Amino acid sequence: MKIITISREFGSGGREIGKRLADELGFDYYDSEIISAVAKKSGLNADYVTMHLSDHGWQNVPITFRGTIGSTAYIQSSKIELLLAQKRVIEEIAALGKDFVIVGRNADVILQGYNPFNIFVCANEESKLRRCKERAPEGEILTDKQLRRKMKSIDKTRAKTRVLMTGTSWGERGSYHLTVNTGGWEIKRLVPVIAQFAGLWFGGQA
Amino acid sequence: MKIITISREFGSGGREIGKRLADELGFDYYDSEIISAVAKKSGLNADYVTMHLSDHGWQNVPITFRGTIGSTAYIQSSKIELLLAQKRVIEEIAALGKDFVIVGRNADVILQGYNPFNIFVCANEESKLRRCKERAPEGEILTDKQLRRKMKSIDKTRAKTRVLMTGTSWGERGSYHLTVNTGGWEIKRLVPVIAQFAGLWFGGQA
Repeated sequence: MKIITISREFGSGGREIGKRLADELGFDYYDSEIISAVAKKSGLNADYVTMHLSDHGWQNVPITFRGTIGSTAYIQSSKIELLLAQKRVIEEIAALGKDFVIVGRNADVILQGYNPFNIFVCANEESKLRRCKERAPEGEILTDKQLRRKMKSIDKTRAKTRVLMTGTSWGERGSYHLTVNTGGWEIKRLVPVIAQFAGLWFGGQA
Repeated sequence: MKIITISREFGSGGREIGKRLADELGFDYYDSEIISAVAKKSGLNADYVTMHLSDHGWQNVPITFRGTIGSTAYIQSSKIELLLAQKRVIEEIAALGKDFVIVGRNADVILQGYNPFNIFVCANEESKLRRCKERAPEGEILTDKQLRRKMKSIDKTRAKTRVLMTGTSWGERGSYHLTVNTGGWEIKRLVPVIAQFAGLWFGGQA
């Protein structure tokens, strides 16, 4: 079984690379589907699960729902439980035995026993800012300053969650086989070459 | 003109990648030639120039020569002068107008006006250790502990020199187009795919 994991800075185009790689290689693709699966399994409100498992935190959750949540300690503990539930969902996906691409969620560490090909995607801030604006969710109108703060905050959450779940640092070059900086490239043209790297990994490990 | 710069952790195989890339693409290749050029131009003793410009520092210099060098302040100032002389040599190479691969020496920053393709090469410590042992200079017998210390010390010199010369951090993913972790790969099989990345960069910048 071949697994490609994509870790990424917010706004760098990591999801697009993941999706296109899966298409190119005919692999399954997992991203936010995982959050839905955790919600379904846990029987918890989907917004609540999304709040904890998306790196956007509170920002993504309807304001009316936020009021119904209890103390911080309770939230903290639930977040860890949900992260563990998410880990189990990821392990179940791997147990299906089909080739897949998975974006985020520290899957590179969770699935290390399967010897996945691990990619980290980054970009310079200006290029991420441009991308975020082009792809802003409907109704989101943020200033550049707010967007920069959002990018930083989401990446910080990713880094913190990684330490919490794996004890390793997020984004460190040694943790990935390939780190791709998408600034100045057209992503769709990058994908076939990244696919070749992956092929080399699966075909001929030294 | 097409320029590929290679920055690398000591022992990661960055030089081999650079050399092979140059062969594959028919580019000129520059590495320690630059130190010889600086020595020739400056009229200084080649050992003395090597000591300052190789990241190995004192370790590479014959013991008899070490005794002839003056105060630390003098050395410090000479090092900066030599780094500036090295920068000029690199600029002169670029002015030749021929395609080339250059290893180390912060060439990615020095040559940024030429829009080079910038690669960083890293590897996990065990794999670097193995490589260092396989390629130890004749007569060098170091224990694993000494080798680890040497690797760390050389990379520290590289990081320090980079800050001094460019004001930017060494090895930060955002500074390079591609960061390749050579651990677990056969380097010669990686090179054609890296060459394709480079071709994409030179052929189709977004």
